Amino acid sequence: PYYVAFSQLLGLTVVATTGAWLGLYRGGIAWESALQFNVHPLCMVIGLIFLQGDALLVYRVFRNETKRATKILHGVLHVFAFIIALVGLVAVFDYHRKKGYADLYSLHSWCGLLVFVLYFVQWLLGFCFFLFPGASFSLRNCYRPQHIFFGAAIFLLSVGTALLGLKEALLFKLGAKYSTLEPEGVLGNVLGLLLVGFGVVVLYILT
Amino acid sequence: PYYVAFSQLLGLTVVATTGAWLGLYRGGIAWESALQFNVHPLCMVIGLIFLQGDALLVYRVFRNETKRATKILHGVLHVFAFIIALVGLVAVFDYHRKKGYADLYSLHSWCGLLVFVLYFVQWLLGFCFFLFPGASFSLRNCYRPQHIFFGAAIFLLSVGTALLGLKEALLFKLGAKYSTLEPEGVLGNVLGLLLVGFGVVVLYILT
Ligand code: HEM
Ligand code: HEM
Ligand code: HEM
Ligand code: HEM
Ligand SMILES: O=C1O[C@@H]([C@@H](O)CO)C(O)=C1O
Repeated sequence: PYYVAFSQLLGLTVVATTGAWLGLYRGGIAWESALQFNVHPLCMVIGLIFLQGDALLVYRVFRNETKRATKILHGVLHVFAFIIALVGLVAVFDYHRKKGYADLYSLHSWCGLLVFVLYFVQWLLGFCFFLFPGASFSLRNCYRPQHIFFGAAIFLLSVGTALLGLKEALLFKLGAKYSTLEPEGVLGNVLGLLLVGFGVVVLYILT
Repeated sequence: PYYVAFSQLLGLTVVATTGAWLGLYRGGIAWESALQFNVHPLCMVIGLIFLQGDALLVYRVFRNETKRATKILHGVLHVFAFIIALVGLVAVFDYHRKKGYADLYSLHSWCGLLVFVLYFVQWLLGFCFFLFPGASFSLRNCYRPQHIFFGAAIFLLSVGTALLGLKEALLFKLGAKYSTLEPEGVLGNVLGLLLVGFGVVVLYILT
């Protein structure tokens, strides 16, 4: 109960800190300009961290609701998470295309694409097995443990990927200045620790 | 059974790839020179990734041994992991001191110090509760779930920290060349994916 309140507080702080970082140090958000890049971190954090994390908690938080209701909420949150994350991905690829930058060279981008594909597969399998009426009980029972393990693993990978992206964004811009504890660097590090904290709390509630 | 073999193969590949990276692109290993830095990644990967990971698997792999035997093996592996990780930390702080570099400015170093302190606390608590004969059964039962959850969390945090360190080491040296898919960058990315893979497999065997 308190953990859940704490997780929501942390999750919202993560989103707000991301927004504050982009607003204070990166000039804000827009689609049709150099600011298009900034759509990427914001959407990834809202979609693949906050909403995905909350989707995982649904069954633990609403224990007294019907299975049907929680299942729909879990699914709906994952639909939103997926759409927002997709917008964030389109933003960075479109931005790279316009600028003529290389694609998919970094560890962050490799992990990012991997995690997104895995998320999409999990999403399709989730719908097929748990919403499609044709799936038998035994099939569902067989798939359930896989769904739970891979769901948790994909969420943790998302947190790791976001940390790599954040690190990269800080190092690209700050370079050697990073070591002088610039305000942007410190805010970025704090955002990183908040992301880690959210990941740990979600995992704790889940287990 | 196959998973365990696979995890060991992956773990050894991670260590070998780290060694290959440092040997091929970073001039090898030494204490009394500019190469002292290279002791850091190697020791952290061997101690806090490979040995810590294997220590977590002991109870799953040796199911037929006595509890006493597996407990000693778990503890001994953690002792080695701790010592090797400590050498790796001393190496980087000593190197920074000699070079006059700043300490503890990066997200990697913050996560690194945090994870090491948590690891040390877990280590002390593990010894006090599980080896010290005075700890009662009920105390042990009460602490056991915490020990398991935090053990898994600390291991995952170690993997995340190593990814951040790797990313940083690649970006510091390669800079803009990172985007041209230099051999060192590609090898580094592959090492990153191997680290992720080892983390996922250990978690899978554990759950
Ligand atoms: C889990 C969430 C995330 C995923 C799945 C993800 C995925 C990706 C992918 C696939 C690319 C490659 C785009 C291309 O090659 O054209 C990319 C690029 C990038 N992302 Fe993310 N991202 C995430 C979160 C973040 C965050 C939170 C930040 C910053 C705070 C960030 C910063 C960057 C940067 C700087 C690039 C461009 C450089 C590069 O290709 O590595 N990302 N991201
Ligand atoms: C890619 C997105 C998804 C992820 C990461 C994910 C992750 C998870 C996780 C971690 C759990 C365990 C929750 C707990 O034990 O409290 C879970 C349970 C569940 N998920 Fe998903 N899920 C995804 C998509 C879906 C979809 C699209 C559906 C279909 C509506 C679905 C249906 C379920 C059901 C029915 C359960 C409960 C299983 C049970 O304990 O009976 N999931 N999911
Ligand atoms: C889980 C394992 C690891 C932990 C706990 C860890 C911890 C630390 C700590 C505490 C520092 C700060 C030293 C100082 O401020 O003087 C540091 C620095 C550094 N580490 Fe690691 N490290 C780990 C793995 C790695 C790996 C695998 C690499 C590279 C492949 C790496 C690369 C670096 C670099 C480049 C620095 C210097 C820049 C900085 O302070 O961020 N680390 N590490
Ligand atoms: C910092 C280091 C440590 C970490 C990260 C860690 C982690 C873990 C994990 C993840 C498990 C669960 C294994 C499983 O369920 O198969 C476990 C079990 C256990 N650990 Fe540790 N551990 C650490 C140190 C210690 C120490 C120093 C001792 C004392 C010898 C100890 C004693 C135990 C015992 C007795 C269990 C079995 C609990 C049971 O009855 O299921 N641990 N540890
Ligand atoms: O549709 C589902 O019904 C439950 C059921 O299997 C009983 O738990 C479940 O987990 C589903 O996904």
